[in-house]
Amino acid sequence: MLKRRTDLAAEAKELYEQSAKQTTKLTGVEANDSVREGFPVNTVRILNEEGEKALGKPKGSYITLSLDGLARREQDAFSRAARALAAELTELIHLPNGAPVLVVGLGNRAVTPDAIGPTVTDHTMVTRHLVEQEPDNFSAFRPVASLAAGVLGTTGVESGALVQALTQKISPACVIAVDALTSRSLERVCNTIQLADTGIVPGSGVGNHRVALNAETLGVPVIAVGVPTMVDGATLCADLLREAGKEDMEPETLGGAGSDLFVTPRDIDAKVAELSKLIGYGINMALQPGITVADIDMFLS
Amino acid sequence: MLKRRTDLAAEAKELYEQSAKQTTKLTGVEANDSVREGFPVNTVRILNEEGEKALGKPKGSYITLSLDGLARREQDAFSRAARALAAELTELIHLPNGAPVLVVGLGNRAVTPDAIGPTVTDHTMVTRHLVEQEPDNFSAFRPVASLAAGVLGTTGVESGALVQALTQKISPACVIAVDALTSRSLERVCNTIQLADTGIVPGSGVGNHRVALNAETLGVPVIAVGVPTMVDGATLCADLLREAGKEDMEPETLGGAGSDLFVTPRDIDAKVAELSKLIGYGINMALQPGITVADIDMFLS
Amino acid sequence: MLKRRTDLAAEAKELYEQSAKQTTKLTGVEANDSVREGFPVNTVRILNEEGEKALGKPKGSYITLSLDGLARREQDAFSRAARALAAELTELIHLPNGAPVLVVGLGNRAVTPDAIGPTVTDHTMVTRHLVEQEPDNFSAFRPVASLAAGVLGTTGVESGALVQALTQKISPACVIAVDALTSRSLERVCNTIQLADTGIVPGSGVGNHRVALNAETLGVPVIAVGVPTMVDGATLCADLLREAGKEDMEPETLGGAGSDLFVTPRDIDAKVAELSKLIGYGINMALQPGITVADIDMFLS
Amino acid sequence: MLKRRTDLAAEAKELYEQSAKQTTKLTGVEANDSVREGFPVNTVRILNEEGEKALGKPKGSYITLSLDGLARREQDAFSRAARALAAELTELIHLPNGAPVLVVGLGNRAVTPDAIGPTVTDHTMVTRHLVEQEPDNFSAFRPVASLAAGVLGTTGVESGALVQALTQKISPACVIAVDALTSRSLERVCNTIQLADTGIVPGSGVGNHRVALNAETLGVPVIAVGVPTMVDGATLCADLLREAGKEDMEPETLGGAGSDLFVTPRDIDAKVAELSKLIGYGINMALQPGITVADIDMFLS
Repeated sequence: MLKRRTDLAAEAKELYEQSAKQTTKLTGVEANDSVREGFPVNTVRILNEEGEKALGKPKGSYITLSLDGLARREQDAFSRAARALAAELTELIHLPNGAPVLVVGLGNRAVTPDAIGPTVTDHTMVTRHLVEQEPDNFSAFRPVASLAAGVLGTTGVESGALVQALTQKISPACVIAVDALTSRSLERVCNTIQLADTGIVPGSGVGNHRVALNAETLGVPVIAVGVPTMVDGATLCADLLREAGKEDMEPETLGGAGSDLFVTPRDIDAKVAELSKLIGYGINMALQPGITVADIDMFLS
Repeated sequence: MLKRRTDLAAEAKELYEQSAKQTTKLTGVEANDSVREGFPVNTVRILNEEGEKALGKPKGSYITLSLDGLARREQDAFSRAARALAAELTELIHLPNGAPVLVVGLGNRAVTPDAIGPTVTDHTMVTRHLVEQEPDNFSAFRPVASLAAGVLGTTGVESGALVQALTQKISPACVIAVDALTSRSLERVCNTIQLADTGIVPGSGVGNHRVALNAETLGVPVIAVGVPTMVDGATLCADLLREAGKEDMEPETLGGAGSDLFVTPRDIDAKVAELSKLIGYGINMALQPGITVADIDMFLS
Repeated sequence: MLKRRTDLAAEAKELYEQSAKQTTKLTGVEANDSVREGFPVNTVRILNEEGEKALGKPKGSYITLSLDGLARREQDAFSRAARALAAELTELIHLPNGAPVLVVGLGNRAVTPDAIGPTVTDHTMVTRHLVEQEPDNFSAFRPVASLAAGVLGTTGVESGALVQALTQKISPACVIAVDALTSRSLERVCNTIQLADTGIVPGSGVGNHRVALNAETLGVPVIAVGVPTMVDGATLCADLLREAGKEDMEPETLGGAGSDLFVTPRDIDAKVAELSKLIGYGINMALQPGITVADIDMFLS
Repeated sequence: MLKRRTDLAAEAKELYEQSAKQTTKLTGVEANDSVREGFPVNTVRILNEEGEKALGKPKGSYITLSLDGLARREQDAFSRAARALAAELTELIHLPNGAPVLVVGLGNRAVTPDAIGPTVTDHTMVTRHLVEQEPDNFSAFRPVASLAAGVLGTTGVESGALVQALTQKISPACVIAVDALTSRSLERVCNTIQLADTGIVPGSGVGNHRVALNAETLGVPVIAVGVPTMVDGATLCADLLREAGKEDMEPETLGGAGSDLFVTPRDIDAKVAELSKLIGYGINMALQPGITVADIDMFLS
């Protein structure tokens, strides 16, 4: 199996199937496509070890929401996308009402394409202290805590270790971890959200987290929410060569060159701002059922 | 005893002694004055329960560094003040070389007079991960981790609980906690640093922390570094009346009115920036002996 | 006439009328009260030189919107307040459709109570370049430019001079200038918006602007939008004494003591965030008729 | 002549000379290499129209400072680099003592690789208002004003137009404009500073400025200070192919694909922070002769 540089299960499956060397059937993986609030939804389920090996991802469900309509600023697109995200999250999370949740933003706020995690925490309705301190007013809310886990260079502590420590302290029923991802495809960059019930796997994503955030390390289910905000250099190169009609090159044949670079759209600041808000609102709507975009606006302002 | 609104032991002692009602001698408290690098240093030692009752502060050492020369921008004032702070900190801390330390910035970065704690962490040399990952280059450094503990409204988790969780996780030999304080005297505001080996007591300071950060709650010594950046409304009122020659009023007689307000100098942004850098550099020089201002500049840039 | 420390015409009128020394009738001033979208609106019109002398403010209209319902988080309060603000602004501005406007945020983003001007520019729909570059898509929009005018210490240029320079360059039909104000009353702080067609007068507000921003200096009408975010120290003192039932003191008798201080609510960061968004949305709705809160959300995200 | 995607005159000259198609001698261009404070300095002088055509840059002097020693954190590297930059700037600027200067930071603070201009203004000693207001204390200083010119999307006003307006208003003797650049070489990215007495040419750099900032448009000499913080996608692709031993491809043959992307090092936030400080200090030392790094630290803190 080639080592493929993608954090998206949907891409991993595509790559497996496109591969000329692949003569065996892909087993241990189920997939299906649907539409939610007008946005395409692709679900990949890795069922067993065979599927894990084939796609290079742990067993579990991976849901990819495509946000084409959002970029075209279609009527009511933001609300529809937030509702779609909330609905997909709700299916993954399975929590009793009132069970407490911890939302974690991974990544580096000072580097624009890696800022999506910390920025999502700015749009998260934090209610844990309110439910505790003012139960009369906030008893209808699920207790939600939030942490922008910082970066190793500014804390000296691995993000994963910090999240472990806080999880042990406040005992949430579930952790939602938001992070920037790397994609194989320029088209998917800033245009896709992946949800997974497998947690965040070490070595994936941008920040090269060494401590996995998953049910095994945290003791509670971990839902990963990821947005590809960059491609790696080798992928970009292959894409540009293909676009220019030059040749069909596998990025892997460049042997990892360019892996110390970010390749990201020029309007990355606007994209990160828009997507962070969308994810924050989607998470809020999944965690506090019945709440609307207008309610969240009022709560957060 | 009147409930006095000051976080400074030196002020509490002054108030005790000035009080007309006070006929008994102040016992259980030792004090002395000295000079370090040209800056006045006042030390108050609360020795026993009698001293605790009299000053309303827990047993321990309180060192007040007065920064008059800094405001006058005397020759080399920043370096001298950083060295003075480092020397006083070193006497309080008593750590073997190489013992790991956690520096915690308390307070709210979004409110200027309460931003001193988080801003100090920007000037702290974070080395814990470097000592671990690159021992050949960084073995001479003490491992230092750092956390801006956030505010309840943005995390849903009490700062103290977050610090407890991280302390349990990474087991430092000592915690240094930096926070903004409230003073009784406009003259001391942004002009004084208090060091104490007693930790941060609940209810003190600005942020109304409910969880104490001290040896009892964290299991390791806690050094508090505090800067008065505001006075309370009643104190301001008493000061203005006295300045205007109107009357001599005890702030306490206003019955807590004005306690929901910040009173702070107009140039608070510049003051917080300057003092945060000074405290960060002083902590660095205390924790990494032999290091100079120029070394820190290079490390942090 | 006593020199009164208030930027609000409604307060200046109150003070004039309450003054025991005042035996003559207040002439040259008209006032009336109304309600807009459920919020109380007070209008003071200073008609002539007599009125100017009595209230210490230049001739013109001053509209005060009271936001009590907003703090109580009544149903739909944000939208109603934004519409009320837009309606009052529209009456003051009198602009033909499509006439270009410059929105200026005065004050210092680094000092929380003075950050309201710069923060409003973050919520302003900037369209000038879009109308120019993509007339097909944006011809329905009024061209709006925006400037956070910075502070003297960071630019070396008086805010007023910078606004003059830009006004000469881009020739707007009207300038809207947003600034933090000082009030006489703690109750009005962060609870009131004043609109005036007189521009910003030198010496008023927080920032002590020396260059007036008005029709005379800029050559076009200047609408001022001000929010009291602080009281001065002497006013606070008088308020606390009265609250505590001690005495009825005129702040002016303290002779200007405390004028180098900010007195501001403890939750000033949340208040400034909320009010800046409200003012931005109100301005957008006044300048782009027919636009809704949801439209603005989509434009700005 | 191929259209080459580099903002560096030194690279343009290299490309001209390497080009296989080039049989004619490069005339109208002088170059020489030297060393300043241990750092290599390359100077390219474009003397006439022939030189302009050959290198695709306007007539003038282009100085490239290579910062290899800085990355290696050699002894005293920051001070030496700041002095080297100041010395080279001084030779380009030729100003009488006391002549006022405007320092302009171009680019978008919200996008890390484009933030270098605005961030330099944070490290610039702004003295214009001090020289005016406190001539007794500041008469020895040159008046310096500073502007982070913002981005079109947040102001609606082209950066160049804003700089023109301010230049007309305050009449500096010279403008220094700092901007992020695009390089052809990954090795030069964040490792090189280019100074030029030609101003900023439209279409160059990252921000695609349409209004040139030069002596013609501003009426005063314009010194450009540029740092390559990114390469374009096609260049990256050619570099990766060459590194991997695949082929020698001219980036231009990809026909402009990838030009809507940023390619930037992963540690871009740390690099931009370090280089911005260096450039700010270098500019300060060129404009205020005799000043040291320690003096600047004290002034800015």
